[in-house]
Amino acid sequence: MHKGRLEAFSDGVIAIIITIMVLEMRVPHGAAVSDLRPLFPVFLSYVLSYLYIGIYWNNHHHMLHAAKRVTGSVLWANLHLLFWLSLMPFGTRWMGENHFAPIPTVLYGIDLLMCASAFTLLQWAIVAADGPESPLARAVGADRKGLASRLTYLVAIPVALWLPWLATCLFAFVALMWFIPDRRIERQLQTGGSSPGGAGAT
Amino acid sequence: MHKGRLEAFSDGVIAIIITIMVLEMRVPHGAAVSDLRPLFPVFLSYVLSYLYIGIYWNNHHHMLHAAKRVTGSVLWANLHLLFWLSLMPFGTRWMGENHFAPIPTVLYGIDLLMCASAFTLLQWAIVAADGPESPLARAVGADRKGLASRLTYLVAIPVALWLPWLATCLFAFVALMWFIPDRRIERQLQTGGSSPGGAGAT
Amino acid sequence: MHKGRLEAFSDGVIAIIITIMVLEMRVPHGAAVSDLRPLFPVFLSYVLSYLYIGIYWNNHHHMLHAAKRVTGSVLWANLHLLFWLSLMPFGTRWMGENHFAPIPTVLYGIDLLMCASAFTLLQWAIVAADGPESPLARAVGADRKGLASRLTYLVAIPVALWLPWLATCLFAFVALMWFIPDRRIERQLQTGGSSPGGAGAT
Amino acid sequence: MHKGRLEAFSDGVIAIIITIMVLEMRVPHGAAVSDLRPLFPVFLSYVLSYLYIGIYWNNHHHMLHAAKRVTGSVLWANLHLLFWLSLMPFGTRWMGENHFAPIPTVLYGIDLLMCASAFTLLQWAIVAADGPESPLARAVGADRKGLASRLTYLVAIPVALWLPWLATCLFAFVALMWFIPDRRIERQLQTGGSSPGGAGAT
Repeated sequence: MHKGRLEAFSDGVIAIIITIMVLEMRVPHGAAVSDLRPLFPVFLSYVLSYLYIGIYWNNHHHMLHAAKRVTGSVLWANLHLLFWLSLMPFGTRWMGENHFAPIPTVLYGIDLLMCASAFTLLQWAIVAADGPESPLARAVGADRKGLASRLTYLVAIPVALWLPWLATCLFAFVALMWFIPDRRIERQLQTGGSSPGGAGAT
Repeated sequence: MHKGRLEAFSDGVIAIIITIMVLEMRVPHGAAVSDLRPLFPVFLSYVLSYLYIGIYWNNHHHMLHAAKRVTGSVLWANLHLLFWLSLMPFGTRWMGENHFAPIPTVLYGIDLLMCASAFTLLQWAIVAADGPESPLARAVGADRKGLASRLTYLVAIPVALWLPWLATCLFAFVALMWFIPDRRIERQLQTGGSSPGGAGAT
Repeated sequence: MHKGRLEAFSDGVIAIIITIMVLEMRVPHGAAVSDLRPLFPVFLSYVLSYLYIGIYWNNHHHMLHAAKRVTGSVLWANLHLLFWLSLMPFGTRWMGENHFAPIPTVLYGIDLLMCASAFTLLQWAIVAADGPESPLARAVGADRKGLASRLTYLVAIPVALWLPWLATCLFAFVALMWFIPDRRIERQLQTGGSSPGGAGAT
Repeated sequence: MHKGRLEAFSDGVIAIIITIMVLEMRVPHGAAVSDLRPLFPVFLSYVLSYLYIGIYWNNHHHMLHAAKRVTGSVLWANLHLLFWLSLMPFGTRWMGENHFAPIPTVLYGIDLLMCASAFTLLQWAIVAADGPESPLARAVGADRKGLASRLTYLVAIPVALWLPWLATCLFAFVALMWFIPDRRIERQLQTGGSSPGGAGAT
């Protein structure tokens, strides 16, 4: 039951983040196709963030499914992850409205890095609660994919200062990396938890 | 449990979409009856979208009730459906505020078509996971009603360029088609899943 | 399970309505006590609506607890109730920002009446599904309190045109009538469902 | 089941409060680092409130886990707590946008005091329903920590008129006091419920 309520609360917060983000897109005043054009980069940034939040929800779902105990550390590590996720709509809008300008793209990348690190922290908290022989501990393994994601963010953040579009492509690349082989992992066995930059089963 | 969390998350997102949509109606500055009049088309577009979101929630509820397995494809097909549903408030407002002008009505129709197609995709993903002998696979059948809905949208979208009010009537007609015979289907047996333009049991 | 998801969805919508309503209170620009003064009628209207939404959630909770079957009619009667409840924040703000002016107070009263009628409709739908011997059917009884509430609204709505503050007091009186003896009913037995203007256990 | 729906509703409301609060941070118009600077006090006040709402969710979770019966009084005491919590985003923004000016800080402190008192009321309602031999009644004990929190608020509120930053530090101190020893209590045994200013296990 403990775990059920943690999941329900996280679902609520993630559902609000993912929905509000799309709802925040301002309706243009005119009624012509050209009035939609300035919304295009905003829409693009939303699609990217929607994909990220979707991946996090998906991986959070798998990770908590594998978790056995919910301690105080797990509760707070979860709230910590939700905090950085809740800053995603802010970063998304700032980046979208400024057409992927350098500084907003840097901030977006920093938030992605914080989310990824918070996911890893949550994973550690669950592994610490469940013990090294737990299914999650074994599923996490060497976490090569998580490390690759975080390194990509660390490269993309300074790159964003000069080539923000390249940095955005790197962010999208990490998202696709997590999105595509998701099924393969699932087939292998009940994966523990893996997130963009968090920790993977590879 | 897997399925429970997918339902809970979808309920959360749909609850936010349906509520925020109505909440977004701006309060007029004056306190006279005449101050409400410009809100009338906005209100009308909300009623139509509320009906649609209600139908989707209803059908989503039935379809997932019939589903047996939740795979990675089902999770992502579900997030894909929620994405197009989450654009409904944007389309609704743009159409309402511009008093059902051509281009916003076209966009609204495109979003309805995308929602309907995403619902069908979700249905396919569940049938693929559950197998051709599953209750859902048998309930879906020839999907004549779903096909009729999508064809109506395909007709209504170009019509909206010249006669947006006729297109809106077509959208309302599809909604009523799904709303009214809902009970008949239910009496027949535990229906799988059917949506406006998705796939019906008829 | 069917019932569980209906409850979860309703909880989600009601939670959003009750929270957004309070969140919508605009932050004043100044930082002095006097800057809060114009917010006072807005705050007052929020407290009244919060009480109403709380009563509806409470009674909805009891009524669905007593319900045995969830049919298509019950699903739609529930969405219909949620629709009128979702208009409460709009009515609340319009009334509060115009300092309880006549027309906004009339509209608020009409919405209260629609909510009460929608609650009765939902009760009828559940009784029709569960049969006349169901616990809910017996608990509803003569519904004197529900009738009294609706009659009070019918009196208060025209009164609001001349004496909006008196109408507001009548609205508050109905809320208190439902709020206070709530415990007495509960002690008697598992009450079915009762709402302001919906249907009571007498 | 009764308790499950109360928890689900509270989770929904708290999830909305905690998320909207962070989402409300306005996106600056420029795209430079200096455009973020005026947001810093706003961000700081959000972090403090996020921590508080997180603590309340955490303690609410523990308290309801220990509760055995949900009476009408418990339902209303819970709605009362949610009311004061729902005013937190308003207080947070007013304080943040005015850079921790005296009057907004006083109001924030008053809301914290009301939340703490409402939590204690909810605790009393649950203890009254469950009896003096219930696990919660024993866990609450002398409630020294709760008393200390409320006294700190009572000192901090007048202090805020002259030294608002000192008052803010006192608010942060109470939050940390509840945040840090959380784990120790948990290890002891299934704690009942404890909140900042509500009631602690000592």
